[in-house]
Amino acid sequence: MSLVVQKYGGSSVKDVERIQAVARRVAARRDAGNDMVVVVSAMGDTTDELIDLAHRITRQPEPREMDLLLSTGELISSALVTMALHELGQKAVALSGPQAGIMTDTTFSKAKISAIDPARLERELKGGKIVIVAGFQGLTEEEDVATLGRGGSDTTAVGLAARLRADACEIYTDVDGVYTADPRIVPEARKLDTISFEEMLEMAQMGAKVMHPRAVELGQIYNMPITVRSSYSDREGTIIGVENVNKVTGIAHDADVAKITLVGLPDRPGVAHQLFAPLADAAINVDTIVQNVSHHGVTDISFTVAKTDLQSSQKFIESVARDLGASSVIANPDMAKVSIVGTGIQNHPGYAARMFGAMSEAGINIDMISTSEIRITVLIERAKVADAVRALHRAFELDQA
Amino acid sequence: MSLVVQKYGGSSVKDVERIQAVARRVAARRDAGNDMVVVVSAMGDTTDELIDLAHRITRQPEPREMDLLLSTGELISSALVTMALHELGQKAVALSGPQAGIMTDTTFSKAKISAIDPARLERELKGGKIVIVAGFQGLTEEEDVATLGRGGSDTTAVGLAARLRADACEIYTDVDGVYTADPRIVPEARKLDTISFEEMLEMAQMGAKVMHPRAVELGQIYNMPITVRSSYSDREGTIIGVENVNKVTGIAHDADVAKITLVGLPDRPGVAHQLFAPLADAAINVDTIVQNVSHHGVTDISFTVAKTDLQSSQKFIESVARDLGASSVIANPDMAKVSIVGTGIQNHPGYAARMFGAMSEAGINIDMISTSEIRITVLIERAKVADAVRALHRAFELDQA
Repeated sequence: MSLVVQKYGGSSVKDVERIQAVARRVAARRDAGNDMVVVVSAMGDTTDELIDLAHRITRQPEPREMDLLLSTGELISSALVTMALHELGQKAVALSGPQAGIMTDTTFSKAKISAIDPARLERELKGGKIVIVAGFQGLTEEEDVATLGRGGSDTTAVGLAARLRADACEIYTDVDGVYTADPRIVPEARKLDTISFEEMLEMAQMGAKVMHPRAVELGQIYNMPITVRSSYSDREGTIIGVENVNKVTGIAHDADVAKITLVGLPDRPGVAHQLFAPLADAAINVDTIVQNVSHHGVTDISFTVAKTDLQSSQKFIESVARDLGASSVIANPDMAKVSIVGTGIQNHPGYAARMFGAMSEAGINIDMISTSEIRITVLIERAKVADAVRALHRAFELDQA
Repeated sequence: MSLVVQKYGGSSVKDVERIQAVARRVAARRDAGNDMVVVVSAMGDTTDELIDLAHRITRQPEPREMDLLLSTGELISSALVTMALHELGQKAVALSGPQAGIMTDTTFSKAKISAIDPARLERELKGGKIVIVAGFQGLTEEEDVATLGRGGSDTTAVGLAARLRADACEIYTDVDGVYTADPRIVPEARKLDTISFEEMLEMAQMGAKVMHPRAVELGQIYNMPITVRSSYSDREGTIIGVENVNKVTGIAHDADVAKITLVGLPDRPGVAHQLFAPLADAAINVDTIVQNVSHHGVTDISFTVAKTDLQSSQKFIESVARDLGASSVIANPDMAKVSIVGTGIQNHPGYAARMFGAMSEAGINIDMISTSEIRITVLIERAKVADAVRALHRAFELDQA
C-alpha cells in the first residue's frame, strides 16, 4: 500500500462545489488502494478577508494574534473537506496543524517547521482513515499557533511527505504545472515535464508563484520529489526533483520588488554586517544586494525587499541607517526582478551575455545584477517586466522543447 | 486588585465597531485597576453561517468535525478583540479554549467542562495581560476540540470565574438583564435586580434565552454570582445568585417544543427506563414526561424534546418504541411551554390554581403539566404562547415591583 500526500490550494477549495470535487479526487485515490494524507489551504479569499478584518481594527496587528486569526481559515476547509469525504462514505478525520504534530519556531507569520511528531497521524492512518490536515500552521514550544507564511501549506505537505516517507507528494493548484515563463505574459510558454529542485528553488525565489520556496527546499533536503498539477483537470503536471537536459529551463519574474539604497555609508569593515544583522533579526527578507565601489571611504549599499515588506520595514531600516551614519535612504517601490534559471548556466558564461543583449535590444535598462550558479537575475523598472520576460523567452528559444 | 471575568456574546462583537466598543469597555475596567479575563463568542451570525456551509456539504455532519469547524468562530473574535485592545495600548493576549486550559468530555457538540487547568491563564495575568479567551470550546482527552453547545460561552465564563475565584463574573449580552417575562411579548415586563440561582435555572431551562442553564448551574455549584447586563448601555443588570422576596419571580416560555407520544406501550416495570436510557445515551434531551393511567396493561407515554432535536431523534425514538412494543408514535412539532417560576411557589399550593385559572380565562387548553419545587410548567399549542405569557404576567401582577 502506497502513502500519498496531497495538497490542495485555496482556489481548489474555494466553494462547496470545489470541495466536493476535491473529495471525489481524494476518494478515488483512496479506493485505488492508497493511504492518503491531504493538506488543505483556506478557502479562496478567506485569508485576505481575515487580514482585511484585522487591518480595520489595527494597522499593525500583533503577529501572534494575527496567526491565531489566520489559522482558522485552514481549520474551516479541513473540516469541510472531511465532511465531504464522510458524505462519500469514506473514513476520514480532520486534524489541525498542531494535532498533526507540526511544531514550529516562534517567528509568528513566517514560522519554520522545527519538527513533526507523526504519532497521531500514523494512528489515524492505521485506523484506516484519510487524514485531512489544516495546512499553513503549527504549534510553537509555548503552545501558541504560528503560521508558515504565504504558501505555507505547500511546506506542510512536503514536510509531512518527507517525515512519513510518503511514496508521492502532489501539490494541486489552479495551474497545470511549472511553465517556462508565466503564460499570462508569454502565450507560447511551455509546461515543463520535470525540473530539478535547484532550478525550482531559483524559480520560486525569483517570483514563480507555483510553489513556496521553503517547500521546494524541504523536498530537496529530504529528496522528496513533488508533483505540481491542476485540481481542475487530469493533465499530467510537472515533477520537481528530476533533472532535465535544458540549458535554460525557464524565465522567472517578480513584479513586487522595492529597492532601498543607503547613501554615504562609511566604508569600514563590518558595516554590511551591522546593516543586515538587525534586518534579519527583524525577519525582513533582504534579497539582491549591491555595494558600490568606495570613494573617499564612503560607499552606497542597495538591496531589494518584497514590496509588501517595504512599509513595515522602512522606518526600521531608516533607524539602522542613521545608526550607521548613512547620509540618506532612498526607497523605490516600483521595481521588478527578471531571472533566467537553468542548470546549464553554471558551465556557460555566454548565457549572461545573451541575456544582457536581449535586454538591450528590447531597450530595457538594467539597474542591478545578481547571479547564482544556476540563475542570473536583473533588477529593472516594473513597467518593463512583461517586455523583459517575453524578450528572454524568445532569446533562449524556450517555446521549443 | 480584583479579578473580573467578563463574557461578550455574539451580538456584542458582531462587527468591527462593536468589537472596538467591547475593547474600550474592557480597557476602562482594566484601567480602574482590575485583572481582566474576557470570554468572547463568535461574531454575530458566524456560527450559523458555518453550520449552513456544513449542511451544504452533508445533511448529517460528524460532530467531531462540526466542532472543529464551529470553534473557529470564537478564535476569530478572540484574536480581533485582542488586536483592538492592543490598538488601545493595552497588554492583551488571545487564548483558544484549549490554551486557556479548558478540558471537556467527548460529547462533541454538547461537551461538558471536565476540568480547567489555570496555569497558562494565571501566567498571562501575572504578566500584566488582559486575557481574551475563545468561548464555547475545550479540549478532550484525545486532544480534539469539542464545543459546549449553544450558549456555551456563558459556561466558559462562569467556569473560569469559579476556577480562578474571580471577584465578579459579568455576562454582557444584547438585553439589559433578566425580565419578569420576554419584553417583546409583555411590554410591561420589569427588569429584575436580582434572581436566585434556582429561579434562574428554572427560567433558563424553560426557555429564557438570557443565560445558558449549564452556566447557571456552575454558578450555583461554585456559589459564583453572575451579573447579566447589556453591552450597549451602562444600565445596571440583574445579579443572578441573590434571593429576592418575590413569590413568583417571572414567566418563562419556550416556543420551540415538540411533543412525542408512544401509544400502547405494555405497562410493565422498567419500560420507562428502557425508553429513556437509550435516548439519554444518544444525548437526546427529554423534558416534561407524562405517563397515562394504565388500561388493560397498556399505557401511553408522552414527553417533549426541543423542536430542533425532533428531526434527528425521531427515527431513533421510533426504533426504540418498536423494540418496546408500542403500537404507534405520534409527533407534534407545534407545541410550547409556559412556566411560572419563583421560590415562593414551594410553600403556596394556591399558585397552581391561580395559574390554571388564568389559562382557562384566556381560553387556553393545557396539554401537559409538570412541576418542580419552584416552578409550574404547562404544555400548550404554540399559537397560544404569547396570550398565555401575558395572561400569567397579569395574573401574578408582575408589572408591580
